Amino acid sequence: METEARFSGVIAPVLTPFGEDGNPDAGRFIDHAQWLLQEGCTGLAPFGTTSEANSLGLEERMELLEELVDDGIDPAKLMPGTGTCSLADSIILTRHAVDLGCGGVLMLPPFYYKGPSEDGLFRFFAEVIEGVGDDKLKVYLYHIPPVAQVGFALPLIGRLIKEFPGTVVGLKDSSGDWSNTAAILAAHPQLEVFPGSEVFLLDGLKHGAAGCISATCNVSANAIRKVYDSWKAPDAEGLQAGITALRKALQAYPMIPALKALIAHYRGDPGWAQVRPPFVPLPAAEAEKAIRTLADTHGFTLDFAKAA
Amino acid sequence: METEARFSGVIAPVLTPFGEDGNPDAGRFIDHAQWLLQEGCTGLAPFGTTSEANSLGLEERMELLEELVDDGIDPAKLMPGTGTCSLADSIILTRHAVDLGCGGVLMLPPFYYKGPSEDGLFRFFAEVIEGVGDDKLKVYLYHIPPVAQVGFALPLIGRLIKEFPGTVVGLKDSSGDWSNTAAILAAHPQLEVFPGSEVFLLDGLKHGAAGCISATCNVSANAIRKVYDSWKAPDAEGLQAGITALRKALQAYPMIPALKALIAHYRGDPGWAQVRPPFVPLPAAEAEKAIRTLADTHGFTLDFAKAA
Repeated sequence: METEARFSGVIAPVLTPFGEDGNPDAGRFIDHAQWLLQEGCTGLAPFGTTSEANSLGLEERMELLEELVDDGIDPAKLMPGTGTCSLADSIILTRHAVDLGCGGVLMLPPFYYKGPSEDGLFRFFAEVIEGVGDDKLKVYLYHIPPVAQVGFALPLIGRLIKEFPGTVVGLKDSSGDWSNTAAILAAHPQLEVFPGSEVFLLDGLKHGAAGCISATCNVSANAIRKVYDSWKAPDAEGLQAGITALRKALQAYPMIPALKALIAHYRGDPGWAQVRPPFVPLPAAEAEKAIRTLADTHGFTLDFAKAA
Repeated sequence: METEARFSGVIAPVLTPFGEDGNPDAGRFIDHAQWLLQEGCTGLAPFGTTSEANSLGLEERMELLEELVDDGIDPAKLMPGTGTCSLADSIILTRHAVDLGCGGVLMLPPFYYKGPSEDGLFRFFAEVIEGVGDDKLKVYLYHIPPVAQVGFALPLIGRLIKEFPGTVVGLKDSSGDWSNTAAILAAHPQLEVFPGSEVFLLDGLKHGAAGCISATCNVSANAIRKVYDSWKAPDAEGLQAGITALRKALQAYPMIPALKALIAHYRGDPGWAQVRPPFVPLPAAEAEKAIRTLADTHGFTLDFAKAA
């Protein structure tokens, strides 16, 4: 049981839409989550970096998660972000996710204080895991040094797996450095490893990765899923080249505002483009350029015809 | 009224002691705050970086602040840290501080997402100030780029002062870069500017600074206060040299664990040394070395005879 993969495939860090009052918009959020599952996502990671999770309040995060479960999304498919700077709040969010039946949690390290020791980071995770005190807890470590600055070195990963077998079961590697992902896969074959970008999906799968958890799954889950489903097929390289090119085209824009602008456009719902400070919306001219360039060069479009 | 300084002098970012259960220890916290005022602190900034504020939970912060006020500390002397990554939680903490009558709040910028635009940071502060919606709110901007990575450039400071006169009234500069502090003092003479280290206290006062807010005020407020009180006296340079030397000696150790180890030693209360992850306590041998070196070289000691 303990070695069975809990998550695999294509997982979207779900964007968080806001209403005109600046508060999270539960209706748009649920619609987007359901659409992502229709598009081929095998799981959802609400409250990731792409979700503007760290701009949300503690209560906002818990309420939005409850909305997804109340709307009928299988909590086993949910891997909400629950890691914050604060030990106390990380325990509150993690226990809440476990109590809702979430299949896992994606945990940032405490990221305010820079240069923490391996012992300090180990103690943080140990205290969260012991504080939650529930065997149903499945922790996915969230390594994103370009943003969090604080990350997971190989020895720390090894200590956590060894001390908490069956609890620390996976890792998202958003280092953007394939050699780091490859080193983790080689060192810890039992770990469910997800590169943080679909650029590394095919290489990852060949080396034992479980799938990918990527910002752009919010708009291209369908194409990414095709690579996941047919990675042993003859045309896998060609499919991978397509999703790599689209990802690189998207990276020309500020990612979160651009993703929201694309959804706003194709849903015909301008309010979707709203972001929470410190982000600012993509300027209209930039948004038009993104929409046009992506359509012309990559045949990019979004189909909400099937959406609720 | 609007131009009258609200805070000045020697302000301690109050250390947060923990109990054996790992929770904040309100009794030790109140005792320490009262002792700091006896030692010469003119104000207290609970929930600064030194306070391990970002390792505390939302509820923990609010409860501890209420303890200080309930214990009779004049809230006009309190400048709690209320800035978090999250817009929603920053509003909750800031409103709570204003409702308690706090003289000001010390606000970090949202620090998770790196490289935010000036517009995005401006919008964050605008939304907090408008969200709290209370003329009694006095905001002190907390510039600490070595830790937060995100900071306040001069144009942003200027925009905030201009848009929110009488609300954005001060700044703590923990850049560690005197030329930055000098530039802010020159550009914004009306701002209450506090260098984040007493190393810059005398230079700061000569250029119009309001005082200092410094980690080491937790153990050397008395000596720092003497510089503040007699900065125009003939022996000011000599007094400044003394507090500079002590600060530099303290900086040889991890600051927060070292400060707690010193207090634990001189209070004869080993539990005081506890820190919350991601920090780890100073190893016993290091603590003994720090105590001995500081005593031998700087005549350093702490006197809790008058303490409650």
